[in-house]
Amino acid sequence: MAKDEPTRMHSEKAGMLPGALVHIGERKVENIRITIIDYDEKTFQERVVENIDECLAFKETPTVSWINIDGLHEVEVIEKIGQCYDFHPLILEDIVTVGQRPKCDEYEDYIYIVMPMLTYNWRTESIESEQISMILGRNFLISFQEKPGDIFDRIRERIRTAKGRIRKMPSDYLAYSLVDAIVDNYFVILERLNENVEDLEDKLVGEPDKTVARKILDLNRQLMYVRKSVWPIRELVSKLDRSETKLISKHTRPYLKDVYDHTIQVIESVQSLRDIMSVVLEAYVTSISNRLNAIMKVLAVIATIFMPLSFVASYYGMNFKEMPEFQLKYGYIIALGIMAVSTIIMLYYFKKKKWM
Amino acid sequence: MAKDEPTRMHSEKAGMLPGALVHIGERKVENIRITIIDYDEKTFQERVVENIDECLAFKETPTVSWINIDGLHEVEVIEKIGQCYDFHPLILEDIVTVGQRPKCDEYEDYIYIVMPMLTYNWRTESIESEQISMILGRNFLISFQEKPGDIFDRIRERIRTAKGRIRKMPSDYLAYSLVDAIVDNYFVILERLNENVEDLEDKLVGEPDKTVARKILDLNRQLMYVRKSVWPIRELVSKLDRSETKLISKHTRPYLKDVYDHTIQVIESVQSLRDIMSVVLEAYVTSISNRLNAIMKVLAVIATIFMPLSFVASYYGMNFKEMPEFQLKYGYIIALGIMAVSTIIMLYYFKKKKWM
Amino acid sequence: MAKDEPTRMHSEKAGMLPGALVHIGERKVENIRITIIDYDEKTFQERVVENIDECLAFKETPTVSWINIDGLHEVEVIEKIGQCYDFHPLILEDIVTVGQRPKCDEYEDYIYIVMPMLTYNWRTESIESEQISMILGRNFLISFQEKPGDIFDRIRERIRTAKGRIRKMPSDYLAYSLVDAIVDNYFVILERLNENVEDLEDKLVGEPDKTVARKILDLNRQLMYVRKSVWPIRELVSKLDRSETKLISKHTRPYLKDVYDHTIQVIESVQSLRDIMSVVLEAYVTSISNRLNAIMKVLAVIATIFMPLSFVASYYGMNFKEMPEFQLKYGYIIALGIMAVSTIIMLYYFKKKKWM
Amino acid sequence: MAKDEPTRMHSEKAGMLPGALVHIGERKVENIRITIIDYDEKTFQERVVENIDECLAFKETPTVSWINIDGLHEVEVIEKIGQCYDFHPLILEDIVTVGQRPKCDEYEDYIYIVMPMLTYNWRTESIESEQISMILGRNFLISFQEKPGDIFDRIRERIRTAKGRIRKMPSDYLAYSLVDAIVDNYFVILERLNENVEDLEDKLVGEPDKTVARKILDLNRQLMYVRKSVWPIRELVSKLDRSETKLISKHTRPYLKDVYDHTIQVIESVQSLRDIMSVVLEAYVTSISNRLNAIMKVLAVIATIFMPLSFVASYYGMNFKEMPEFQLKYGYIIALGIMAVSTIIMLYYFKKKKWM
Amino acid sequence: MAKDEPTRMHSEKAGMLPGALVHIGERKVENIRITIIDYDEKTFQERVVENIDECLAFKETPTVSWINIDGLHEVEVIEKIGQCYDFHPLILEDIVTVGQRPKCDEYEDYIYIVMPMLTYNWRTESIESEQISMILGRNFLISFQEKPGDIFDRIRERIRTAKGRIRKMPSDYLAYSLVDAIVDNYFVILERLNENVEDLEDKLVGEPDKTVARKILDLNRQLMYVRKSVWPIRELVSKLDRSETKLISKHTRPYLKDVYDHTIQVIESVQSLRDIMSVVLEAYVTSISNRLNAIMKVLAVIATIFMPLSFVASYYGMNFKEMPEFQLKYGYIIALGIMAVSTIIMLYYFKKKKWM
Repeated sequence: MAKDEPTRMHSEKAGMLPGALVHIGERKVENIRITIIDYDEKTFQERVVENIDECLAFKETPTVSWINIDGLHEVEVIEKIGQCYDFHPLILEDIVTVGQRPKCDEYEDYIYIVMPMLTYNWRTESIESEQISMILGRNFLISFQEKPGDIFDRIRERIRTAKGRIRKMPSDYLAYSLVDAIVDNYFVILERLNENVEDLEDKLVGEPDKTVARKILDLNRQLMYVRKSVWPIRELVSKLDRSETKLISKHTRPYLKDVYDHTIQVIESVQSLRDIMSVVLEAYVTSISNRLNAIMKVLAVIATIFMPLSFVASYYGMNFKEMPEFQLKYGYIIALGIMAVSTIIMLYYFKKKKWM
Repeated sequence: MAKDEPTRMHSEKAGMLPGALVHIGERKVENIRITIIDYDEKTFQERVVENIDECLAFKETPTVSWINIDGLHEVEVIEKIGQCYDFHPLILEDIVTVGQRPKCDEYEDYIYIVMPMLTYNWRTESIESEQISMILGRNFLISFQEKPGDIFDRIRERIRTAKGRIRKMPSDYLAYSLVDAIVDNYFVILERLNENVEDLEDKLVGEPDKTVARKILDLNRQLMYVRKSVWPIRELVSKLDRSETKLISKHTRPYLKDVYDHTIQVIESVQSLRDIMSVVLEAYVTSISNRLNAIMKVLAVIATIFMPLSFVASYYGMNFKEMPEFQLKYGYIIALGIMAVSTIIMLYYFKKKKWM
Repeated sequence: MAKDEPTRMHSEKAGMLPGALVHIGERKVENIRITIIDYDEKTFQERVVENIDECLAFKETPTVSWINIDGLHEVEVIEKIGQCYDFHPLILEDIVTVGQRPKCDEYEDYIYIVMPMLTYNWRTESIESEQISMILGRNFLISFQEKPGDIFDRIRERIRTAKGRIRKMPSDYLAYSLVDAIVDNYFVILERLNENVEDLEDKLVGEPDKTVARKILDLNRQLMYVRKSVWPIRELVSKLDRSETKLISKHTRPYLKDVYDHTIQVIESVQSLRDIMSVVLEAYVTSISNRLNAIMKVLAVIATIFMPLSFVASYYGMNFKEMPEFQLKYGYIIALGIMAVSTIIMLYYFKKKKWM
Repeated sequence: MAKDEPTRMHSEKAGMLPGALVHIGERKVENIRITIIDYDEKTFQERVVENIDECLAFKETPTVSWINIDGLHEVEVIEKIGQCYDFHPLILEDIVTVGQRPKCDEYEDYIYIVMPMLTYNWRTESIESEQISMILGRNFLISFQEKPGDIFDRIRERIRTAKGRIRKMPSDYLAYSLVDAIVDNYFVILERLNENVEDLEDKLVGEPDKTVARKILDLNRQLMYVRKSVWPIRELVSKLDRSETKLISKHTRPYLKDVYDHTIQVIESVQSLRDIMSVVLEAYVTSISNRLNAIMKVLAVIATIFMPLSFVASYYGMNFKEMPEFQLKYGYIIALGIMAVSTIIMLYYFKKKKWM
Repeated sequence: MAKDEPTRMHSEKAGMLPGALVHIGERKVENIRITIIDYDEKTFQERVVENIDECLAFKETPTVSWINIDGLHEVEVIEKIGQCYDFHPLILEDIVTVGQRPKCDEYEDYIYIVMPMLTYNWRTESIESEQISMILGRNFLISFQEKPGDIFDRIRERIRTAKGRIRKMPSDYLAYSLVDAIVDNYFVILERLNENVEDLEDKLVGEPDKTVARKILDLNRQLMYVRKSVWPIRELVSKLDRSETKLISKHTRPYLKDVYDHTIQVIESVQSLRDIMSVVLEAYVTSISNRLNAIMKVLAVIATIFMPLSFVASYYGMNFKEMPEFQLKYGYIIALGIMAVSTIIMLYYFKKKKWM
């Protein structure tokens, strides 16, 4: 869905009371699902919980608690979390209102991060967007997804198996891992778009058909959608990195710089693809003109050869009885000769002009 | 009205004396209408007043007083307010001069905010603009509208019913609510423009007609008008947020950041729409060329098939009596054969070239 | 005159000695004319002086002295002023060299401001430029114009009649008034250009004629000329406002901010007009292509209808005696029938393709 | 290879565990090759080592040690170096992951630099990229190449022969020399691309053929690839120069400024070439239109001459017996006369219109 | 020579040893020529010297010494100066390497300035570039030119005749004078390019011929070349002005600001010309399309008139004996009538459509 969803969402919201917590967006799952992973270097537990109250117990433990919520339509759950952790009401509103611009808001005791995760839908050949929110606190991370996804599974696996550094690091490293996973996913989108652009280029060198115009329009919309999504992520990561909050430790900062470099790379790739697209579009216009030239050449060649021929034939079809050629025995041989000469001259002319 | 109103307004003003308070702009209401809402967490009163003097009584009360004035043509009223509250003369001039660039000017005891509110006129398919001015003081907010509108009704309703936080917050939160309502309204405009762009896209993939050029021109003017309006609003909100004035409390600032994010979203959506429009325009040019190609193919096919046929027919219409074919009993069968072969060759050629 | 005058002026100067005071530019008046207005809140006098020496008497008076000089070709006068007031030689050079880039240079005791005043010449439909220089000192303002103009008459009138604040304010407010008058004049130009663009738009929707291309080129040059003039004025005003000089009092600064907003508005309007112009140009290209399509449709329709008809006619003009149709009594009815059917098929085809 | 390699690399990586050291990229050599050059002003030794352990001995010597590793697929070697010198794990990941964005990361005791080296492959007419990583420490420089290359041979030669300043300077000058060699190589690429653009220009003035569109697309991709590579190098060098690290001595900084100037020159040249390319593309479109005009002129001339002629001939081919011309003895002379006059008029008309 | 010389120069250099002083660039004079002018307010001497050693005597005199060297190929001379004055080796390299990006490098005791001087070659209609280097010290200025030129002659004349301020000012004013002379020269180039653009505009409104495309390409290259040259000069002058070096006195700074304004004017003029060029290019494309339309109209008119006529003639050329018209005495009058009516209808149609 590369259409301008945020606009529509906001336009819906324009008629509502600010302050009331209402889920704005498509409902993508039947029931919300809450999972909690609690770990430090030595301990680890993972649970699917029925009731949000079970999570709240982990609030004060010194271990890192990662609460993940799939589905945003049960606003009471989100309101309860908000009350328990004492989050600013604007955060709760943003979580349940799909179509947020990626941003990070720093508060005294926690950081709110919201960003879209894009996935390429191979069936519809379109880009789908899901809003991911995270709240990072001293020893917890709460993440909100519109629907269950497998993008964070690798991180869960790493926590379970204690691979890499993740079990030894505080909650900010977990937040980095999530952001990194989302940004890395943009490269998958970009690779697909790049393939589409290359397909288009090959088509243009061959014989472009009717679908090309549609494809150019679609690819442009998709590129603009990715750009619009990733540009603010760059600001977000940069702001996180420059932030003086104590929630982000000195050890995690180099990793944030790394994510930052990746977002820059995504932006540059999108920009390159857009530049290439504009040349592709120009090349498409050119190819249409070239085909017109080809058509006109055929028409010109045919007309230029047969018009004189037809004239000669018509000429000798005139009904004057006194025309001298009619008196000659081989008059019609003369006519044939004129036709042949005219044709040869024309063919020579076209060869020279490279029209044939 | 997406025409360049500010320019015209200023051009009118170029011939006037600075310093004199003159209403410059269309008079949109018969009589001006003054309403006052005075509230704090516990008390609330609302009145339509006949005479501006009634309002002045609220000046020194500790409650929040919201004076709203619909209609700008009675400059004496505005002058009176100016004298009573001791506003800078430039502010009064700006209030009555329609076509101001959105801005906020900070003075010691009050902040002046002016911004356009856009509404989409469905009947004329054009964007209409109304200038909203606000003066925010310690415990009052004075707002000026060109004509009565329903955009602030929801805020009034919330104050009356004490819903949300508004009754508990000082006057700066009220100012935020007004600005937020105006900015949220831009999303409605954008959604409509987005629909128009999509309509245009669909038309181009189908059969574009004569009105397309006009629609492209109009949509462009409208997009540029929205952009020109919203761009300075971004500065305005950002300046309000960064300002060190005591008039804006710490608690209101996160809300200003939120409005700021929304203006950024409006700007980005406008930019996306403009980018898409430029591709749409390009696609329109392409579709014209494509149709030219289609026309030329038909012409070329017809000419290429019938020119040789006509030549053969003319050839055998020559009046030489000695032509050998005329001697043969089935000469005309030969002629028919030549015609048939030429036609088949041509048809085969066109099939191969995909012109048919 | 929207041509690149500064370039020519400089190119002339490239061959001269720096340091020598030479008037570079067209001589627009026969004789220079010096007027002096001297005022404070209570006193007022106005004189046309013959000799510059008369002005110098006002140098040390505490009243505000406004010396205005129309005509730049008598360099001795300007040199004399320079010596009397001890101005930097570069200032004198800049005053007499037409084509300066708008700027303000701060010196210890005075500020030098130079900016172009644009006027729209209705007869030649071109923009004319005049260089205005001002030197603002503690209690004087010296202004230099290329020729007498009526743009400052309203300010003189206000001083005479003591309207507005001007008589109560120091010389910096007078400088502001002059700059404001010049900037307000840009809106008149813009309104005229906007009308021209709208005329062009209407022409394109109707039937564009040969003059359109010329008008597009001219309007573009004019827009670029206005932009080039106003862009540095923005810097100029901004620099004046941010300057820490004591020559500009606290009370005048809000007025400078106001002028600044106006220059921004001029810039944005020029930018909008340029954007609209680029779409207009695109629309013009499109309209040419559309007309080509219309022409080609007529040609294709005519050719496609008459080529088969002519072929059939030619066919039955062949001189084979054994052709079976000739034997039939109503053979020619058959021929007529074939023609009619072919025509009907073609007409139906064109209707379906909407070529007719 | 001007395709978007980094994107693909990242997309591959999206599925992997961060933290694991895996070589991502094409394996370009059979075996990795480690060389070490150790020098100061007086001493010099150079060795190809079999085992990385031999290098580690040089870690603490006061002489400058340059360890160069060709081939990135043996991650154990790189891990060993990392452990020995205590490098941050992110650096090791970046070294073995081809497709890094050029950057320099400062750590306390060392600086990590990564940048692509471009070479023009004359056979495939494409640009090939190789990732070069360097780690600069107090008295060592470790460089990593994907495959052995000759670009650093001149630097080795200078060290061996003690030419220039290199033997007298610390390790930062060696790092500068390597960066300088890589940047200088960009000029070779640019010269080749400039030649290609000029070839294209000449082709367009002559007779453009079918391959032009393909060449325009390819050159654009290559220009964008160079731009994307060199733009971050500018940041890199600028960051190195501004850095307050003690690893870069005061004497080396002017040289860094020099490299910086060169990168700016590369960027400006790329930009110029892109601007020229866009004009070239426009010129190509123009040339196609011009050729269409030429074709249409021929068609129009032929049709305009022969259509009236054919009509006259057909006219006198009508079978009415009462037509007066048939009664005249020299009726057919009249017919001939009409044809001649019509042809002469048409030819005159075309001469005047310059169509012939 | 508007080709990308720096690129070629660098590409040549890529294969050389840094540190070795080698002249890279075309050798433009036979022998180098050294002149020295030594002056203060009272004394003056001027000499052409054979041997560089003669100059060195002036090093320590308190008077201003201006050493000018024409020709860069005798590197020993430049090396000798370098040793005597103790210049940084990078400066010497830059002096002899043509194609430097304009820049100024500040060292403790001297400032190095390098910038290109452009001249318009009227014979080849191309822009020629010459590299000018200057080293400004406390009481000396050393300038290096590729070949003798007359651009500095006016400055020499002023020094000789003690006109203007130059003899009273220190060496920094001399440096300013040289830079000013070079920048003023850009206006000469711009005026010529402006004339070329206007010629092109006039040609397009008239009848554009084949050379137009070539001229557009050339003018674009030249404009880009000027822009590329002047843009860094702006930085250079700005850096000089902002510099805190004691080598530039307070009195010279206003003059630097003046040069800065001139470079800004050059940049803005180049930008304007480029914008106009892009409209001119668009207008050229439009004019081609317009001419195509004109051609097609003629073709369509001719075909539309004569096709029906020819058909009617062919129709009555059919050999059916029973056709009723043949029986009528004035059947051919009917045929003539049909033809006349058809022609009149068509002519009326074309008049209405304004095709004729």
